[in-house]
Amino acid sequence: MSDRSVDRNQLSTDEFLAAVNYDSGGLVPAVAQDARSGAVLMLAWMNEESLRRTLTTGDVTYWSRSRQQLWRKGETSGHTQRLVEAWLDCDGDTLLLKVDQTGPACHTGAATCFFRVLGDNPGDA
Amino acid sequence: MSDRSVDRNQLSTDEFLAAVNYDSGGLVPAVAQDARSGAVLMLAWMNEESLRRTLTTGDVTYWSRSRQQLWRKGETSGHTQRLVEAWLDCDGDTLLLKVDQTGPACHTGAATCFFRVLGDNPGDA
Repeated sequence: MSDRSVDRNQLSTDEFLAAVNYDSGGLVPAVAQDARSGAVLMLAWMNEESLRRTLTTGDVTYWSRSRQQLWRKGETSGHTQRLVEAWLDCDGDTLLLKVDQTGPACHTGAATCFFRVLGDNPGDA
Repeated sequence: MSDRSVDRNQLSTDEFLAAVNYDSGGLVPAVAQDARSGAVLMLAWMNEESLRRTLTTGDVTYWSRSRQQLWRKGETSGHTQRLVEAWLDCDGDTLLLKVDQTGPACHTGAATCFFRVLGDNPGDA
């Protein structure tokens, strides 16, 4: 058991918020992963307010860099994300959100935003 | 079958390299996921040269923002990443790399860089 402890340090909401290292623009990348299938769905950005809303409401809310405003995922499409688990990386500059995704995660209608794949075998090119 | 086509568009190495939208600093975030377990291991950054090396050699190679140099994962630790699949998101500004990870992914010795988790239930704070 003890050798697993490094793999799961629990933080309170306040501790979590305080541990994030935002970039020079006040943002941090957040990777959304389907909590059940493990599929990586998308990457978007958060500022402190969007992270606080996400953690305190459970409705995943990003910062839209193009629109420069808070963006509650699914607010127009209905394709919401409910937060299941929030993880922070070793140096505090990336978030991993395990989510319960309603409908497709991608605005194109694809289940995930990652639908383009290298067809060549790596190392063969 | 046809309704799955949107979920998997195959690109050649040249097409893949040309489809990436780098940020103003010439970088793109890359999410590394364990190809077998599905665990998200880390997020790091790539420039065009590191992505080209990754795709053509299969040895995952990032751009170290702190050291400002190419960084072949595991070059000092031995904890290498072999590329299994490379995916690009809908708008070309995030990479998802499914990898065969040797040893722990994190420099702390943890299996993944995401070992700090919100202990409060989302929405309860």
